[in-house]
Amino acid sequence: MELIGKNYIAGVLSSKGKITFKGVNPSDASELPTLFYEATIEEVDEAASKAHEAFAIYRKKSGIEKALFLDVIADEILNLGDDLIDRCSAETGLPPGRIINERARTMGQLKLFATVLREGSWVEARIDTAIPNREPLPRSDFRYMQKPLGVVGVFGASNFPLAFSVAGGDTASALASGCPVIVKAHPSHPGTCELVAMAINKAVEKTNMPNGVFSMVHGPSVEVGMALVTHPHVKAIGFTGSTRGGIAIFQAANNREEPIPVYSEMGSTNPVFILPEALKERSEKIAKELTESVTLGAGQFCTNPGLVFLNNDENLQEFQKETVKHFEEVEAAAMLNKGIKAAFDSGIEHLSKNADTVKLLAKGKESSEGYKGSAHLFETKAKSFIEKKFLEEENFGPSTINIIADSREELLASARKMKGHLTATLFATANDLANYTDLIDILEQKVGRLILNEFPTGVEVCHSMVHGGPFPATSNSRSTSVGTAAIYRFTRPVCYQNFPEHLLPEELKTDNPLGIMRLFNGDYKR
Amino acid sequence: MELIGKNYIAGVLSSKGKITFKGVNPSDASELPTLFYEATIEEVDEAASKAHEAFAIYRKKSGIEKALFLDVIADEILNLGDDLIDRCSAETGLPPGRIINERARTMGQLKLFATVLREGSWVEARIDTAIPNREPLPRSDFRYMQKPLGVVGVFGASNFPLAFSVAGGDTASALASGCPVIVKAHPSHPGTCELVAMAINKAVEKTNMPNGVFSMVHGPSVEVGMALVTHPHVKAIGFTGSTRGGIAIFQAANNREEPIPVYSEMGSTNPVFILPEALKERSEKIAKELTESVTLGAGQFCTNPGLVFLNNDENLQEFQKETVKHFEEVEAAAMLNKGIKAAFDSGIEHLSKNADTVKLLAKGKESSEGYKGSAHLFETKAKSFIEKKFLEEENFGPSTINIIADSREELLASARKMKGHLTATLFATANDLANYTDLIDILEQKVGRLILNEFPTGVEVCHSMVHGGPFPATSNSRSTSVGTAAIYRFTRPVCYQNFPEHLLPEELKTDNPLGIMRLFNGDYKR
Repeated sequence: MELIGKNYIAGVLSSKGKITFKGVNPSDASELPTLFYEATIEEVDEAASKAHEAFAIYRKKSGIEKALFLDVIADEILNLGDDLIDRCSAETGLPPGRIINERARTMGQLKLFATVLREGSWVEARIDTAIPNREPLPRSDFRYMQKPLGVVGVFGASNFPLAFSVAGGDTASALASGCPVIVKAHPSHPGTCELVAMAINKAVEKTNMPNGVFSMVHGPSVEVGMALVTHPHVKAIGFTGSTRGGIAIFQAANNREEPIPVYSEMGSTNPVFILPEALKERSEKIAKELTESVTLGAGQFCTNPGLVFLNNDENLQEFQKETVKHFEEVEAAAMLNKGIKAAFDSGIEHLSKNADTVKLLAKGKESSEGYKGSAHLFETKAKSFIEKKFLEEENFGPSTINIIADSREELLASARKMKGHLTATLFATANDLANYTDLIDILEQKVGRLILNEFPTGVEVCHSMVHGGPFPATSNSRSTSVGTAAIYRFTRPVCYQNFPEHLLPEELKTDNPLGIMRLFNGDYKR
Repeated sequence: MELIGKNYIAGVLSSKGKITFKGVNPSDASELPTLFYEATIEEVDEAASKAHEAFAIYRKKSGIEKALFLDVIADEILNLGDDLIDRCSAETGLPPGRIINERARTMGQLKLFATVLREGSWVEARIDTAIPNREPLPRSDFRYMQKPLGVVGVFGASNFPLAFSVAGGDTASALASGCPVIVKAHPSHPGTCELVAMAINKAVEKTNMPNGVFSMVHGPSVEVGMALVTHPHVKAIGFTGSTRGGIAIFQAANNREEPIPVYSEMGSTNPVFILPEALKERSEKIAKELTESVTLGAGQFCTNPGLVFLNNDENLQEFQKETVKHFEEVEAAAMLNKGIKAAFDSGIEHLSKNADTVKLLAKGKESSEGYKGSAHLFETKAKSFIEKKFLEEENFGPSTINIIADSREELLASARKMKGHLTATLFATANDLANYTDLIDILEQKVGRLILNEFPTGVEVCHSMVHGGPFPATSNSRSTSVGTAAIYRFTRPVCYQNFPEHLLPEELKTDNPLGIMRLFNGDYKR
């Protein structure tokens, strides 16, 4: 498939602007073919207008129609074949095997939402029927369900060029909810974005959806994104990326004449606590798996464990030695782009400069090729962690800090001091857990996902996933950006009072033609 | 019961400040007995610290324990007897009969949340069990449920001194979710606030809840409220009141180091559309009921119908004549306080000054006593409504504007131009509805509750209620402040991965000891 480099505005290829850019292979810093056109403000406006028009039609599509649309998007992504795998691997430096797995996940998540739509109960239907003879006042008939918010703007992430990008979780959940989507393509993988946009457009045509239901604009500069966030037709934003970017979008959205919800999934250092008995019993295994988890995908996972809390006991030294050995063996790996590599290096430099606080324990193999980054293992004291804010900040890449507590109380104090994170992990035996119930209590209030004896990298797409957490992990702790509950980011409840049957949505008709689960006069039933 | 005039800080009476104020009877502008002490910043901080401590205990209370707490609060409010009715009526100018009804509603809403807690399914439990032999990777065990956010700050409203105040919907839903509450008492009814705080404190003692689970601070000045909104221990805000106040709180909360969710329920003009055949068939009835709805409680309902859209047809004049007749008969009624009365008068003056756009059709009876306001009926053209923003603004009080459309298209254009409202109402026959399906489509996107052939005043407390709507009706359209779904404003999902049964919350144990409805491996079941 040949790349064209243009914006997709409601099914039409468009290149009205003059600013262009190219994709870059981070493995060797070489430029990739195809010139991409940054969208103009007018093109963003055009996409928003078409999306707004499309919403009038798309919001009324049945669950079955939307499910087919999502299924066909998944199929069309597969139909892109090796062109997608090759370009995506070239643009990100991620190996083809990883991209193939990520494609499967991306398709799986579209198909999971299709399943949810076909089943139909996700709308949270609630019905309270009239009680005409109630005293002192009769009760009318009330019926409630979730309805789509309107046009959603999606900012894909660099680190998951398929699963968190053009047809990733934000797009899948927004389309599932009944919202049109405008994607701001990530400039790190513009060709991948174009290929996936092509696939979505084919699905739009094949399933007879209104053209404006999907648009994609290119924009390495801030203006394109801000035009999307501040456009009056845009009613919600999904974002995955840096803390700075996520907060800027959150603030811009709040300062609009009509503020809109922003779901920014930002930085997280995902603390891991290795408790004493677990360390004693499983030191070698944990050291090996920790190294793998920290350096997976060049450490560029939102759930990368960047803080490892340990007690200063007789097993510590052996664990540190083992971990150092593994870290030193790690090959340098291509990071996603020049900016990410530079930020990682500067983070490493910052830690290294604080030699009174932080000690470099191990460094992986080096490479001067492309934007390759080396694994880094640091050590600090829990006392320092409690005192110095910068130690909790994410350094996006293959790096982690062992934080040594001199007492149980110091470990708990470190946990209490922490800000919000996506995940927290405990490595613990039954005895450890019995001795540290207060730690579990503290961590539960700091994260969206609490994990026992498994590393946090790897986010399962299922009904029960929470990929979210208190600020600054996200801008909205009451949501998840992975899993089927992600759909509720883009809906709001609407109540119909005293409506005749024929004007009610199918989901709310008394005889329940869709057979969905509903809260009917206070009872859950189908 | 004797009033003391102090702040309630975690069960302790406190008056460390020097600023004092008194309640006022708006019927005759007379001062009421008891001097009230505005809280100091230190007292707010003390309340927040105690609430934070209490959260560690309260968040672990079972649904049955919290249900008992809510039930006892309701009982203790009833035990306040006529002291509550008398003081509340004196402070608000609302007749005792109305206060008695509102007390029943307030108790009913506490008891409805208690029912929800005893049933238990509200936590939205989701379970995806492990698949150890899945290829290419095994699936771990994931379990999800809603957990309380933390300390909630509640700003009560002046217009519902019981149902939207100290033990109103915000407090009831926050306590139900497992969050401690700090109420900023409304300075318009400080004695009522104190009596209800007493009742809650008795319930805290009787059900052995931690003292910090409830505090109440007085504060006519902005500082006390802002200290609450910006306190690091406060994790969410519920507010009912003016647009200016609601937006100021929303912005302050977003500008915190850790932004927190704000549920501001603000201004709404609740458009009513009287369609042609309904007007022809039910002109007299609608005119009478419109007058009652607009002037109920001196027009001080969030759902007061302040915009009435009509077609310029042969039945218009008769309807206007009838409505004028009713409006002119309406007695002047005490408004809630001096400020509200002044704002209402200034709104009336503003409309009257725009005589080229707005015509005064009728004025109710006048009274110079206390803060009594007179009913006002205005008329304007749909064309003017489309052009002039100020016509959509709420004028809190017994006033409405008939907006005359010269064509069906003008009526639709008016609807399209509207901002967010709490409700929209259609008076329509079956034929009208068939002719105006596009109007329903437009309105559904503008409001939280869509009503047919009933006036919007009166908000049923039930599972299916939505008392919310797009901005500027609220700061968060994805929520409701009335009805059982209001509980989700104060929760966030938490996922437990690979947890042993004995460490899981009861709601998530495999054998479902609470017998709640759960999404278990994709199936809804108990």
